[in-house]
Order: sequence, then C-alpha cells, then structure tokens
Amino acid sequence: MPRSTYRLPKIPEMTIRRLSVYTRCLLQLEEDGVATISSQELAERFNLNSAQVRKDLAYFGEFGVRGIGYHVTGLKAELQRILGLDREWPVALVGLGNLGSALFHYKGFTRQGFRIAVVFDDDPAKIGREIDGVPIVGTQDLAREVRARQLEIAIVAVPAEAAQTVTDQLVAAGIKAVLNFAPARLRVPREARLKNVDLSIELETLSFYLAQGNR
Amino acid sequence: MPRSTYRLPKIPEMTIRRLSVYTRCLLQLEEDGVATISSQELAERFNLNSAQVRKDLAYFGEFGVRGIGYHVTGLKAELQRILGLDREWPVALVGLGNLGSALFHYKGFTRQGFRIAVVFDDDPAKIGREIDGVPIVGTQDLAREVRARQLEIAIVAVPAEAAQTVTDQLVAAGIKAVLNFAPARLRVPREARLKNVDLSIELETLSFYLAQGNR
Repeated sequence: MPRSTYRLPKIPEMTIRRLSVYTRCLLQLEEDGVATISSQELAERFNLNSAQVRKDLAYFGEFGVRGIGYHVTGLKAELQRILGLDREWPVALVGLGNLGSALFHYKGFTRQGFRIAVVFDDDPAKIGREIDGVPIVGTQDLAREVRARQLEIAIVAVPAEAAQTVTDQLVAAGIKAVLNFAPARLRVPREARLKNVDLSIELETLSFYLAQGNR
Repeated sequence: MPRSTYRLPKIPEMTIRRLSVYTRCLLQLEEDGVATISSQELAERFNLNSAQVRKDLAYFGEFGVRGIGYHVTGLKAELQRILGLDREWPVALVGLGNLGSALFHYKGFTRQGFRIAVVFDDDPAKIGREIDGVPIVGTQDLAREVRARQLEIAIVAVPAEAAQTVTDQLVAAGIKAVLNFAPARLRVPREARLKNVDLSIELETLSFYLAQGNR
C-alpha cells in the first residue's frame, strides 16, 4: 500500500469523521472474517455512500485494488495510522463531576487508544485520591502535571464559567488539542485545536425529523 | 418570511447539524443586540463558510433580504421552527449510571426544549424514587410509561449488551427517535430514527491533527 500524501488544508473535517466510521466498519469486517471488500459492498453493508467512501480515501492515497477492492486489514491499519490511532494517547481529564465521571468510565476512549492519565478537579475531598488507579490532582498543579507527563490532549468537563480559565491553563502548559464538553464558547490560540461537543445538536437532528413528520 | 418547502430526502444530515449551529450563532447575535447580518458577516464572525450558509438555508426558503442580509430574530425563529425547537419535547432517559446521570443533568438539553420526563433503570435501589422531581421507573414498566406519556424521543445510556433489548421495547411502545450513547450497533425498524453518539470520534479528529503535526 502506498504511503499517503497529506494535503491537510484541503481535507474537510467531515472526511476525517468518516475515516473514523470506516475504521469501525473495517474492524467489524475483520471480526467477521472478511478479507477484501469493494467500496460498493462496504457502502451497502454499512449504509454508506460508495462514491463518498472513494472520495474520502482518495485524499490519502490509492487503497483499492482493481477487481479485488480493499484489503480489510491493510486499509484498517492505514486508516488507524492516519487518524493517529496506531499509538496510545495519554489524556488529561479536567472536572470529575457527573459528566467527567461518565467520560472517565467511557469505554470507547480506551478502546481507541485514549487513556486518561490524570484527572484534575477542585474538590478538596477528591484531590490526592485515585480513581481506578488514576491520580486526582488539584487544578493548581495542572501546569506541572501536564508538563511532567508531556500531555497533548485534554478533555474539559468543568462548568461553563470555569472552562475558559482551565483551557488557558492547559494550552499554556503545552496541551495542543482540547475536547470541550462545557456549554461555553471557548477561545484557543492558533497553535492549539479546540473541538466543542454539543450533545443537544444530536437531539436536534432527531427533533427535526419528528417535526417534519408531524406537519 | 416565506413558508418553507420541505424536500426531506434531499437534505443532508450535515445541513441539519449546521442549522443547529446557525441557530446558536443567531441567539448570540440577538443577545449582542444585532438586528440584521449578511451571510458574509455571519460567516466571518462565527468562522463559517458563507456559501455553505446560503446553500444550507436555500433548502428551506429564501431568508435573506437584498442589501440588508438576514433579520436575526426572524431567521432564528424560523430555524427553531424547522428544527422542531418551537415546542418542548418530553424525553425518556433509559439508564441512570454514570453517563445517564451526566445526561440527566446536561443543561444543554433543557435549554433547547428537551425535558427528561421519566427515567428508566433496573436498579431496585433507584426504582420508585425521584431525581430532581422526575420519577425513576423500572424497565418492566417502560412500555406503559412511554405510552401514557406519549413520548416520542428516548435517550439510551445503558450498557452495550442491554441496548438492543431496551431499544426494541422503546420502539414497540411508540418511541420514534432514539439517541443512543451505548457503544453498540443497534437496529431500529424503518419507521423509527436512530442516532448513535460515539464520543471517541470527537477525540479522533483531534488525534488526526496531532498525528499529522508530529510527522
């Protein structure tokens, strides 16, 4: 399989999201013992768009083999490498309230190689303790811990009013990518990446369809 | 403002997601006292693509006024109506573990008109109690409660192995839209809508950029 050529500025974020979806489909195929699959079969089986699959993959190289299709295991490995999933990412989690606790226990992160290495919280009752072997550290020691552990990714699950302060501290300490669950409009400097998760948008795509159906 | 004509099969889901984003931007503009805005200004201020904005809105009607742009309050109200956000949606939450509790307290849902009306759980220690005034009901009474409350939307936050059974029960009882947080591949009949939330995909878009940067 050829090495990929990256033309980053041209790759839409939706393409990257779909690479994640394709990786999951390929994992499923691998579990089912499927060795090769055409883009048409892949699309039909997982309710994807075959032209979109080919277009998305074309950003990164020529993966299909004429008359055969894609090699399931090879393509999966290649997509994992492109997505940075061929390694483990230690992650900082900030905030251990309801949402933070849920994210800490969310199995999907671990499965994809994201390991929460340290938890930051302000609650004196939690600081200094451990959760499943992971230390809970006060936010006053955030910068020191992030630097010592050379962390690059952080998940922010603090109340909205604390989110910007925490994010500023994270980025100043060397965090390059922030996944924010706080319902706050955050700013990060150009060298860092920010991804906001707004869970209500997911519900709104559903209410859209219900609203249409009820008219 | 003209009534919208809906051509549902042609509207990409990403367009619907972006309508949610535009609605949030318009709310912000309204709070800031902005009465009208052009698609260019809207795009610049919120880091959107102005051609995309115009194309997305064009699915639903002609909202801009030549030389003026969009009326902020009018467009916001119209988008809320299209998204079904001009009403309250009572929602069933299934599963009150870590993630379920976090979703129960997630303020973003309430803010957009999604009100958790009943919680289902299997834990005898929780059944019959209330959480913030909302009843916690055993899953054996799921069908009865969903019917009695005429619920159409459910959030599934149970372990993966229980997700399909619960979803089947929900749909059989009349639920038309399921937001699934369980890491399981679920099936619903054609008349119901299913939306899977995979939080690790959000992290993967970040690790993609970090992986590219580190090469």
